[in-house]
Parts: sequence; structure tokens; C-alpha cells
Amino acid sequence: MPFQPHHDGSELYVPEQEPSLGQTVDVFVRVPAGADVRQVHVRTTGDGEPRFAEAVVDRTAGGEVWWRAAVQVRNPVSNYRFLLTGARDRRWLNAAGLVDHDVPDHGDFRLVSYDPPPAWARDAVVYQIFPDRFARSAAADGRPLPDWAIPCDWDTPVIGRGPETPRQFYGGDLDGVTERLDHLARLGVNTVYLTPIFPARSNHRYDAASFDAVDPLLGGDAALVRLADAVRARGWRLLGDITSNHTGDAHEWFTAASSDVRAAERELYYFDQVTGDYESWNGVKSLPKLNWGSAELRRRFATADDALLRRWLRPPYGLDGWRVDVANMTGRRGADAYTHEVAALLRRVVAQTRADGLLMAEHGHDHTGDLDRDGWHGTMNYVGFTDPVWSWLRHGDQPLPNFLGTPGGVARRDADAVLATMNSYRSLVSWRSYVHSWQLLGSHDSARIRTVVGDAARHEVAAGLLATMPGIPMIFAGDELGLTGDNGEGSRTPMPWHRPERWDAGTFATYRALIALRHAEPALRRGGLRWLYVDADTLVFLREAPTGSVLVLARRAAGAPVRLTGLPGGGNVYGGAPALRPDADGACTLPGDGPTFQVWRL
Amino acid sequence: MPFQPHHDGSELYVPEQEPSLGQTVDVFVRVPAGADVRQVHVRTTGDGEPRFAEAVVDRTAGGEVWWRAAVQVRNPVSNYRFLLTGARDRRWLNAAGLVDHDVPDHGDFRLVSYDPPPAWARDAVVYQIFPDRFARSAAADGRPLPDWAIPCDWDTPVIGRGPETPRQFYGGDLDGVTERLDHLARLGVNTVYLTPIFPARSNHRYDAASFDAVDPLLGGDAALVRLADAVRARGWRLLGDITSNHTGDAHEWFTAASSDVRAAERELYYFDQVTGDYESWNGVKSLPKLNWGSAELRRRFATADDALLRRWLRPPYGLDGWRVDVANMTGRRGADAYTHEVAALLRRVVAQTRADGLLMAEHGHDHTGDLDRDGWHGTMNYVGFTDPVWSWLRHGDQPLPNFLGTPGGVARRDADAVLATMNSYRSLVSWRSYVHSWQLLGSHDSARIRTVVGDAARHEVAAGLLATMPGIPMIFAGDELGLTGDNGEGSRTPMPWHRPERWDAGTFATYRALIALRHAEPALRRGGLRWLYVDADTLVFLREAPTGSVLVLARRAAGAPVRLTGLPGGGNVYGGAPALRPDADGACTLPGDGPTFQVWRL
Repeated sequence: MPFQPHHDGSELYVPEQEPSLGQTVDVFVRVPAGADVRQVHVRTTGDGEPRFAEAVVDRTAGGEVWWRAAVQVRNPVSNYRFLLTGARDRRWLNAAGLVDHDVPDHGDFRLVSYDPPPAWARDAVVYQIFPDRFARSAAADGRPLPDWAIPCDWDTPVIGRGPETPRQFYGGDLDGVTERLDHLARLGVNTVYLTPIFPARSNHRYDAASFDAVDPLLGGDAALVRLADAVRARGWRLLGDITSNHTGDAHEWFTAASSDVRAAERELYYFDQVTGDYESWNGVKSLPKLNWGSAELRRRFATADDALLRRWLRPPYGLDGWRVDVANMTGRRGADAYTHEVAALLRRVVAQTRADGLLMAEHGHDHTGDLDRDGWHGTMNYVGFTDPVWSWLRHGDQPLPNFLGTPGGVARRDADAVLATMNSYRSLVSWRSYVHSWQLLGSHDSARIRTVVGDAARHEVAAGLLATMPGIPMIFAGDELGLTGDNGEGSRTPMPWHRPERWDAGTFATYRALIALRHAEPALRRGGLRWLYVDADTLVFLREAPTGSVLVLARRAAGAPVRLTGLPGGGNVYGGAPALRPDADGACTLPGDGPTFQVWRL
Repeated sequence: MPFQPHHDGSELYVPEQEPSLGQTVDVFVRVPAGADVRQVHVRTTGDGEPRFAEAVVDRTAGGEVWWRAAVQVRNPVSNYRFLLTGARDRRWLNAAGLVDHDVPDHGDFRLVSYDPPPAWARDAVVYQIFPDRFARSAAADGRPLPDWAIPCDWDTPVIGRGPETPRQFYGGDLDGVTERLDHLARLGVNTVYLTPIFPARSNHRYDAASFDAVDPLLGGDAALVRLADAVRARGWRLLGDITSNHTGDAHEWFTAASSDVRAAERELYYFDQVTGDYESWNGVKSLPKLNWGSAELRRRFATADDALLRRWLRPPYGLDGWRVDVANMTGRRGADAYTHEVAALLRRVVAQTRADGLLMAEHGHDHTGDLDRDGWHGTMNYVGFTDPVWSWLRHGDQPLPNFLGTPGGVARRDADAVLATMNSYRSLVSWRSYVHSWQLLGSHDSARIRTVVGDAARHEVAAGLLATMPGIPMIFAGDELGLTGDNGEGSRTPMPWHRPERWDAGTFATYRALIALRHAEPALRRGGLRWLYVDADTLVFLREAPTGSVLVLARRAAGAPVRLTGLPGGGNVYGGAPALRPDADGACTLPGDGPTFQVWRL
């Protein structure tokens, strides 16, 4: 994999990162001097018609020719790709890479003219907190237990599967979170994402009984205000979690709807007119599905002045945005296909309520068709990041369940397959949607990364990819301590604050250093992505920005050192390997030991 | 490329070809007995959530295991793919083929629950007629010439590019077509597609001056009735050509709109409120673009009882459907994105007017995003058929312009690249949309296939692919005579009725035999598509149906004979090669001479 002609949507290649509809912007493609490229065209399909414009040489620098072409943002999302003509062949360069035959447009690069996501999101490092399991304030002791709860001591093992799973109640609360923000500060994160905090009949609270108040078991509205104030005081951001696909069956809307066929709330759900049965999330009857064909639902959920979506974004709570639960199913049911409409509606309302609000979609499988639509700013990138990283770094031969529920679980794959999967998902969305999606190694819905990879050394490789690849890193609380968990529910491990002997201090230091590196290196937050080398055990890529570049080496095992030509050399900034220096042949040699994760500033 | 696990949407694999919403249907996947497959699951994403269901072995036949699984048509378009688990690896099987890593859903198979296209379409062989150039009845002599016309004798060379190009007037008319239907009968086609027949100010008539009458230069409404009656009398079908993207600037709607800013017709177009300028097709001001945001346009064009879309489908004209010009741009303009809405509207109106009406979209580039949407029944498959076939069979090194206008024209590609392109487009649409799209070797908008391939031998290979691959063959009148033409306009060659010495009788016989073969072999119209072998110069595939199978060999040049195991042998039904008989090793040997096109019935 020698240096190839390259373009991605990042600033080096598209200086105007926030184009408006109708604007014409420059796009650049860089071509190594030795490549067989004599002429470059950019192809667009504005208003549905292919057009070609010739690129010109803008400059030659560092042994590469930079071609420049103009692209009009003719449509809200405007796609383009390059035609590279050489003496021997003509190739297309699209977001999936170089190809020597004609291909459909889905892999084209995209310019998006919708309002951009809030600026802070690109610099965010998100820390996910599952409130019942994070930390318990002293006030928690005095609270009466609800009927569904099975009280658990903080040391009680989590039951990952069974009727007791949603009922185990550890009593973590929001003041507990507030009290532990110093831990987050030491780690270096700057955005707190809370899974649901509304009253419910389970420990996960995805079965909301109301959207009008914070669960008293978490300390109520006042505790949220205290947490939000504390988060703001540190200059951080706070995100909530909203279920747009369903409520709980104890929700006031649903109890009204199910008790009276003439209730105004009836239309908020999918009731069968004959049987009175109702649609629910995956057949779980405690989670009745919302019907987004209902104007009343849109009003209550989003558009009314006091709608829940708005209310919690405003003072005194001031959430900075929402993670939208089961966004992948929201608005989809049989012939109903409201998803894109709902996403756009929620985004519009969030933006009206606070201009810097963020709207992130949960999506556990192929999210690409739901992005770039003036709806979700980004998604939880399980398919384009989590799963491929898992499949590369997983240990053992036992079945390892993935979030998607694929039979046989996560297969073991070599890095070329991992890269193919990452590239295929990335190539189907704009650069903007890609870099504003959450990259994650796991969540409250998956096994924990430590269990997946088996040891601290591979855990470091995984965390390294999380911190250095494009996208917003999201860390599930406890991963930084090396906590384990076999599946989604089982990984909702209470944080062992009182058991420091259970902390993996080395893993914590790794996370802390990697997050600090991400904050320190603009290229890790704003840079492009250029793959340089892949073999079964090795991934090498560049993150390049106008402010400088870094080279990243990830190895899951020891092997032959990789030699790369064309690099300027540079100092190591993570991992402790020697500086890179070109030898007499102009090649730099990357270390062959492994597992290892190394970063150099070029 | 040994036999691989296979599924496509054809009847062998999906016996229910017209599923309805909510229905659960069986899908089958066949696996060669020796393949490493121990378990098969089908994955669906109904309502946006992945689900897996285990397949069971239905039967073993001919050395292959047929697995069966049930898929619910949960959504109007329901996608599915297979997970094949073996001892060593797990692979996905989707419409793009087998893959050993996780991939997005766009390549999934699809079940479409919308009303199917009319049944006759699958058996159609379409013959495209450009009326000014096809045939001239005696009545044409007496007609006064319009001011724009440059009268041409039938032998006058066509000017392919220049100001005179749209003005050369040869005077072909509809009675001329009627008089020549015996030629079509000899050829074997059964569907006549006329490019526009409304009054205009050009020979191509894509600049309609009215939709209310047949151009008197073509004989007027009465001539259309005579032609339609004659076509119907033969049991054939007749299709019109409608411009939904624009009208001519001489159109009564546009003259009204442009002469009075308060005219009801003003909203039918895109006028700039300040400058009075208007949007037009690719900047050609004689083709003002229609604004589908206008309710009045929708009424006049489609929904009104006397709307043009309906009128010509009714007696006494009784067109069997429409080819929609510039469907790719229709409804697209800046932030306006009405295309899918318009397509669905036109389809609904066509179906209301005549249940067996066909609606085909012109689309010159990636059409995949516009199909499977309850709109166009199919498209003109330039990108997934014409261009790859051209790039494989083209002769010479001179630039050969393609329909898309790609700089440098059609590149020369080997068959593996050709197959990759065909597969990539095919995999993005349902089997239904694929087989109902028009496959074509050229049209009035492209060079002629004879000019592309250079000789009769390669022309036969091209025509062979046209007749034997899935999709509805569309033949541009004159291709069957070996006529030539360098570009779209230049290929609008008058039919040399009076110059039989210009006919390539061999090519005519080739077309006639191939079309007869298609009519005779149900597998060529209803069968699946299974690629067996590819090298630079060779393509081998099977068309398989419950009624039997055929094997197709296409070679552009001589080379080593291909040996294939696992075939039962069979008699040659096109091309004259010997029958296939397995040798002692169980292998059949296909002839190595070339160019050649051969078909065997297995």
C-alpha cells in the first residue's frame, strides 16, 4: 500500500467545511508525484445530471501534486468524485478509494449544506454514565424503594441475563455523579452523557413512566440542576438520553391511552382497532411503540413550547443535547416510514431551543441511510468502528456476542477485513457525519472491551484507535478501569470506588494519556484519514491537518517491522517507541513488537 | 470461480414473486455440497432492527443443498441477506456476492411489496423508433415544412454535431412506421417505443410545443390511432415518450408563463422573480424546466381527468405506457427534491388509467437510488449494462464518447472489471427492478453499438448479451442492420429501406435468431443469473429457472478453452458449437475460439 492519490472531506482537502447551498467551493486531491495521473476531473451530479470539470494543479509540495477543482453545492447534499487519467489507465477516486472500473455514486464524497453540528462536538470526549451503577450519594440511603426493585449492595454481582436483570437496583444517583466529576477530570473527558434519568420501572429507565420529571430515585430535578451546574462550571457538556421509539407501559400517556379508546393519547401508540393489542419494541409489551404519524405526539414530544425535547435543554437544566435511543426504529413500522421526517423535526426543535444542541442517534446496524439528512448529527458507530475493532482484537475462541446479535457473535478477522468494513461504512456518509459520530469500544448495551480483548495490552490498542481515529470518542464508564462484562446488561458494572484494588491503574493511565494526546493534537480532532499500511496484525494511518500530522501504528501482535518510504520522520508522542528517522534509502522503520500502539508527530 | 453458494431474487429462490406487505415468504439459498457451510441464517432489518432466523435444509439436489428460510415482508421494501457459517469462517451472501467481512445493507437482497410491473413487460423485446428517421409514408410528401426545418433527402448524411443537428428534417412519420411493422415482425420484437411525437421545433421533439396533439408532421392523432391499432392487431405493445423535466420554449404553457407574470402557467416553471430568467435543462434555454412543486403542474400533467399522462393511454390511442425522458433530473433543482414523489404520482396515475401500463425512467447515470420506490418500474440501464459491455467489446484506441460524457470516453476494460460494474449496480436494486429495466446496447442518445465494437463478430457478442442477460432488451432501430453512428445525434440514421445493399444481413439474422431464442427459452426471461467464469476475454453465466436452464458463453477473443465441472451437459441452442458433454473427469470444455457467442440448454 504505497502512497496513493488521496482526498477525504477534511480541511486539507475541503477548506470550506461549512458550505451553504448554492456556494461553489474548492476541493483538492493530492497525487504522489510518481503516480500515473496526467489529468484530473471532478464529477458531480447536481440536480441529477453528471457533469465533469477539469482540475488544475494548485501546487506541488512534499513530492505530491495538489490538484484543485471547484464544486458547486447545488443540492443540500452534493456528491462528487475524481477521475484520474494517466497514460495507462483511468481510475475513479471516491470515498471508498481508488477503483479501476465504473461504480455507483453511493461511495462519492459529499458536501453537506445543512447547518453544521455544534462546534464543541468535534472536540468532545464523551463519558457515558449509567446512573444506577455509577455512584451513590449519601442521600440515596434514605429513599424508599419502588416495588419492582431488588435492592443490591454495591458489591453484588450484576446478573447479565434473567428476570432479575432489569430489577437489580444499586441506587446510584445524580448527586453521586456530581461527587465523582473529579474522576472524569483526571481522565480528561469533557462531555457527560447520562442514560435515561426519567422515572421508570427498571434500572435502565428506557421504559420511561414520564418525561416531566427526573426520577426521585436519582435525586429528582434538583439533583439534575446540581449536576448540570457542576458540569458547566468545569466547561463541560451534559447530554441526556431520550426514547423516541417507545415509552414504558407505566407512562402516563400509555396508561391514559390503554384505559380509554377515546383518549387523546390513544393515537400516540399503535393500537389494533380490533384486538386492542398494541405494537411494542421487539415484542416487549412493557415498551409500547410510539406512532410518529400522530400530530399530537409530535406536539407533545417536540414542537410544543413545553415539549419534553425542549424543556430539558433549557435552564435550569440546560442539557447540551440528546442521544436518541433506538433511533434506528423510530418512526418505522410496516408501511410507516417517518424516521427521516422525525429526525429532521427533532433537529429543528433542538436547534430552535439551543443553537449549540447536539442530536445523536443510537443505531446498532447500518446507519448510513439515516445520516446526511438534516436529522441526526451523527450516530453511535457500532458497525463501522466497534465491531471491526472487536473482530480484530478479540481474544479466545468462545462465541462473543455482539451488539447486533449476529449468530456466532463477533468473528475473528484480520486487519484487511477490518479496514474493508470500516471503509465501507465510512464511504457511505459525508466526512461531516463520520467525524461527528461516536466511536465507541462498547456501551451499556455491549460486552466490555476488556472482556472482548482479554488483556491490558490489547485494550491499549483498542483505546488507542478510539482516541486517534476520526469521530467523537465515547467511553463507557468503567472501561478506563479495565472493568469486565460479558454482555450488555452484564457490563453495567457498578464503579468500584471503594475497591481501588480492582482498578487497573495502567489502563486508567493509558486512557488518560490517550485522551490528553487527542486534546493536544489538533490533527486527531480535525485531521483527515489516510491509510498507509495494513497486514493481518497491523494498521498504519496518518491523521493530517493544516496544523500538522501524526502517524499512528496499531499492532495486535509482534511481526516483521514495517518500512514506509515518503515519510519525513518525527518524534514519538505516544507509546514510547524511538523517533522515526528516514534511513539512507529514505524509509522509516516502525517497530515490530506487539501488541503495541504508537503515535508520532511528523 | 467454482460453483458458489447462490441466491438471487428470481423464482428459483423466491417462489412468491409478488409478495404483499406483511406476508411471510420462503427464500432459498443453494450451497454446493462441498462448500464449508454448516448453518445458514437469514438476516432482516424489518422496522429498522436486525433479526436473524435460522434456515433449514429443504432438499439436496444435483450436488447442492437447498436451504430454506422465511422472511416477513415487514416493510414495503424488505431487505435480507444470508449468514453462512462453516467450520472455518462465516460469510455473508448478499446481492453483491459472498463476502468475508461485515458490510452495509445496501447490497442486501430486497423483497418489494408494491404492485408489480405489468406482466407483459418481462416478455417484451422493445424496438426504439425515432420517428423522423424511421420511415416516411407517401403522405409525408405533401406536408408543409415548418420554419425551423432543413429538409433532407433520406440519403442525406446525418450531421452529428452543430447548429443544423436538431433541424435536419427527414420527414419520417407514423404511417411510415405502420407500413414497416412487418420488418419488426421478422426481427421478432413485440413492443414499439416511439421517441416523442408531439409538436416541437426540432427533429427530436424533446422540446414539446404541446402535449395535446400528435405532431401533424407525423400524421397527427389519426396516424397514431392507425399505428396503435396495427400494433395491437399483432398482439404487441406501444410506448410513448414524455418529457417530465421540461417542455420546449414554444410550449403553450411556457409562452403563457413567459408573457405574463400573473399567468396561471407561471408556477409551472422556475422563473427568477427578480431577473425574469428561468431555469432550463442544462442551460439550454429552449428547454425550460418544469417545477414539480407546482400543484397546477401535477394536475395538468398527471392527475386531472384529461391530463396528458392519462389521455394518450386511453382509447383510441391506448399507449401501453411511457418512457419518461430525463427522469433523473425531473423534480430535482437545488433544494427541491420531488423526484421520488413525482415518480410515485406518475405511477399511480398510469395504474389508475390502465392497470397494465408501464412506466420506464430514462436515467443516464446511477439510477439505483431512484428505483424500488413505488415509482419507475425500471430504468434504461446504461450504467449497469451499456457502458460495461461497451468497455469490454469496444475496438480501437480512439476516444469513444459515452452517454455520460465521461472525459476520455469509454475505457477499455477486461471482463472482470465489466462484471464488477454490472454487479455493483445490480446489487443496489431489487431483482424486480433489475429485470424490469431496459438493457440496451445504445439508443438515439449514444453512439451505435456497431461503431463501438467495430465488426459483426463482436456485434454478435454484444447482441448475445442483450438477448440473454436479465432485463428487457431494447433495440435502437437500425442496430439490427449494422448501422453506424459516432454519437447520439449522429446515430439517428435514417433506415435504409431503399438501400438493401447497406443492410448487414448477417447481423439481422443474428438479432432475429437471438430474439427468437429469448422468446423460446423461459429461463432467458424468468431465470436467475449465476456467474460461473470470468477472465479478461470471457464471460460465462447460467440463467436458471424452474423450467430449465441455459449456459451462456461470451468471448471477445480466442483463448484457452474453459473447463467447467459440475455441469450436466446439454445441447447447443445458439452459436453452433458442439453439445456440452462432461468428460471422464466430469468437466465440460467450452470452445476457445473467439469472438464467439454460444448458448446451451442444460
